[in-house]
Amino acid sequence: MFDSNHMSVNAKNHLVVGGCDTISLAEKHGTPLYVLDEEILRENCRNYKESLQTHFGVGNLLYAGKALCNTAVLQIIKQEGLGLDVVSGGELYTAKNAGFPMQNVYFHGNNKTKEELSLALSLDVGHFVVDNDAELMRLNLLARDMGKTASVLLRIKPGVDAHTHDYIRTGQIDSKFGYGLETGEALEAVELAIGMNHIDFCGLHCHIGSQIFETEPYCEAARLMMRFIYELENVYHITVQQLNLGGGFGIAYTKEDDPLPFEEFCKVISEALNEEAHRLGMDFPYILMEPGRSIVAPAGTTLYTVGSVKEIPGVRTYVAVDGGMADNPRYSLYGAKYDFTCAGCAGDEKTKTVTIAGKCCESGDLLGEHVALQPVMAGDILAVADTGAYNYSMASHYNRIPNAAMVLVKNGTDRVIVKREQFEDVVRNDVFLEEDA
Amino acid sequence: MFDSNHMSVNAKNHLVVGGCDTISLAEKHGTPLYVLDEEILRENCRNYKESLQTHFGVGNLLYAGKALCNTAVLQIIKQEGLGLDVVSGGELYTAKNAGFPMQNVYFHGNNKTKEELSLALSLDVGHFVVDNDAELMRLNLLARDMGKTASVLLRIKPGVDAHTHDYIRTGQIDSKFGYGLETGEALEAVELAIGMNHIDFCGLHCHIGSQIFETEPYCEAARLMMRFIYELENVYHITVQQLNLGGGFGIAYTKEDDPLPFEEFCKVISEALNEEAHRLGMDFPYILMEPGRSIVAPAGTTLYTVGSVKEIPGVRTYVAVDGGMADNPRYSLYGAKYDFTCAGCAGDEKTKTVTIAGKCCESGDLLGEHVALQPVMAGDILAVADTGAYNYSMASHYNRIPNAAMVLVKNGTDRVIVKREQFEDVVRNDVFLEEDA
Repeated sequence: MFDSNHMSVNAKNHLVVGGCDTISLAEKHGTPLYVLDEEILRENCRNYKESLQTHFGVGNLLYAGKALCNTAVLQIIKQEGLGLDVVSGGELYTAKNAGFPMQNVYFHGNNKTKEELSLALSLDVGHFVVDNDAELMRLNLLARDMGKTASVLLRIKPGVDAHTHDYIRTGQIDSKFGYGLETGEALEAVELAIGMNHIDFCGLHCHIGSQIFETEPYCEAARLMMRFIYELENVYHITVQQLNLGGGFGIAYTKEDDPLPFEEFCKVISEALNEEAHRLGMDFPYILMEPGRSIVAPAGTTLYTVGSVKEIPGVRTYVAVDGGMADNPRYSLYGAKYDFTCAGCAGDEKTKTVTIAGKCCESGDLLGEHVALQPVMAGDILAVADTGAYNYSMASHYNRIPNAAMVLVKNGTDRVIVKREQFEDVVRNDVFLEEDA
Repeated sequence: MFDSNHMSVNAKNHLVVGGCDTISLAEKHGTPLYVLDEEILRENCRNYKESLQTHFGVGNLLYAGKALCNTAVLQIIKQEGLGLDVVSGGELYTAKNAGFPMQNVYFHGNNKTKEELSLALSLDVGHFVVDNDAELMRLNLLARDMGKTASVLLRIKPGVDAHTHDYIRTGQIDSKFGYGLETGEALEAVELAIGMNHIDFCGLHCHIGSQIFETEPYCEAARLMMRFIYELENVYHITVQQLNLGGGFGIAYTKEDDPLPFEEFCKVISEALNEEAHRLGMDFPYILMEPGRSIVAPAGTTLYTVGSVKEIPGVRTYVAVDGGMADNPRYSLYGAKYDFTCAGCAGDEKTKTVTIAGKCCESGDLLGEHVALQPVMAGDILAVADTGAYNYSMASHYNRIPNAAMVLVKNGTDRVIVKREQFEDVVRNDVFLEEDA
């Protein structure tokens, strides 16, 4: 079984998620199947929001949509009163589809296109987190042409080096994201923004990376940002209304990970902020934080059907499932570790050590190597925990595999929130060469 | 400019592909844009087919669809008289959509689902390349239920270790694919297949990996397979009609790669086969080879628009484009190298060393680091060569970025063969939570 308070094993020895028997879910909806536990998602939203308010007083919690973005999930985020980060026109369009209040949307991204900026302006998106001068100028001109003013936060690289995978480390000076603080670029960008007629400079944003387990890099970033704000306000008389401290709070994918609760992050970071503010003799601005993974990853479980078990004597045992890197590329991309269980014998001991192979025609299509599992055979259902973030959102059509469905579970009821793709969807945008007819 | 006979620079100093000015293509169709050169694709099909026939006499060339599979490409493959490998129901459905003759289709994959096998049987697919016993038994039962007989090749791991990236190495004994030869599994599988009423054992398949530059691993695999065939025919009196030697022939992504022409592979492998056949006093069977990447990769060029150029003094320069790991995940997955050029100043010298960053909200979203490029600025069009294989086919919706369009170019004409996804496509399968209305 998984090590979670939200899962249980029923009398049939089946894994139960959100009150639903996972074997029944697999039978009803087919596999691979993304299962999302509504209670966990809502609880995280509420707890995180409360933590932020307790420790920072004023501020808002933004959900980082890139972790998991579909219409139903954004409806839930909206109902829970969170703000939203989007990073593309597609995510913005989804927010619109979900009826998300646009004033609570922050538009991120290191290379927003002109079309995306126009869409965002036409939808009256609340804030733009601007990455670079080219974008700032583009946004100013577009806003002018549309008779609007864009509220802008500038993305700053505080120069803090967090310990995580290179691919998801973003706060260091060698990053594609944002303006360097120590290089003076940040100050120049603020001056540029302030001078623009259709830009309303509103604040600063920083984000040091993803899946981070230490508090000190956050505190250090917060202190550096506070000193910069002090400089802007006292030397340049520029008001900074909002400070967005980003997200990236680590979660436990396996027992090897030992993350702090979000509340602890809030507590320690707010103490650092308070101390620095006190030292500088100033108040701190409206605080924003933007967790994505830590809110939604624990709410997700993926179900697969085992197709074959291949024991290579003296080498290893491959358990092949009917999904893989197409629905979850995190192992092939980052070597990410997950916890697996046999859904139909969830209470049994994991006595085997196996490699979980996907169905893509590629050796790198694995979901885990040397992982503990109960003995399984073809036809068994395999469950993978904590797959709510960066699984559906990173899904590909590699090998033209249609994307999996997603069901929302709660109190023993289930409903489809993303329909399974059909083969018709795979060829939907293909154009037939007429001379061949 | 690129180092290719198929590209040129026109009087405007623009890169020309398939007779089309790439700047005009970008203006007409938008970016990111996959451009596919029809002549290169057709020439490769013809040359490869001729090489195989010259050196092996009898045999057939199969196109490995997983490299690039859409309706128009499969129509061209069909017109050129090649056979086809598919690895999933989605690829099979695309072949059907393209009107591909099903008797020339080989169905691959380490974990075909029951639904996929049923679809393939109902479409009368020519051959199944069976990976494991569970699949063999499943296929036999399904064929029985449908009153059919399935023609089967068994996928064999010859135990040859090719030098390539771990993710795409497949011939070694520790692989998720196929039956071990040296372990005796292969022989047992042939015996199992022979005894099944609805299975017609037709031959053997092996594939040692992808992007391989040496001939010796292929020769070694061919010799091992010939010895196995000799054993089957002489000791067990089992006829082996077809021997599929796989694909994986390396191509030159940059000047650092120095691949052999396909003809050279054919020549050397056929010599090894002939020698071994002569030594054993036997003929060699009908030979199949299945290149994918080497046929289609050189036919593809991807066009992007530069959004910003970020020079970090003393560190590096980031050139941000409007695509990235969502349309080409090969750099983030394998560290794959590509050749880049400024499409609008293609004849100029590449005097800069830059990092090409994508637009995804992820530091790992890069297309190349420390690559040579002409000086570029925001608005310029960037071209990436040899992106015909495993780019479109591996594309994801990460950050909900709609998939790029593909145009087929030839003699200065262009036509869309895959339409650009629209935002409506992004939310097409989303289900709205009604109680929120």
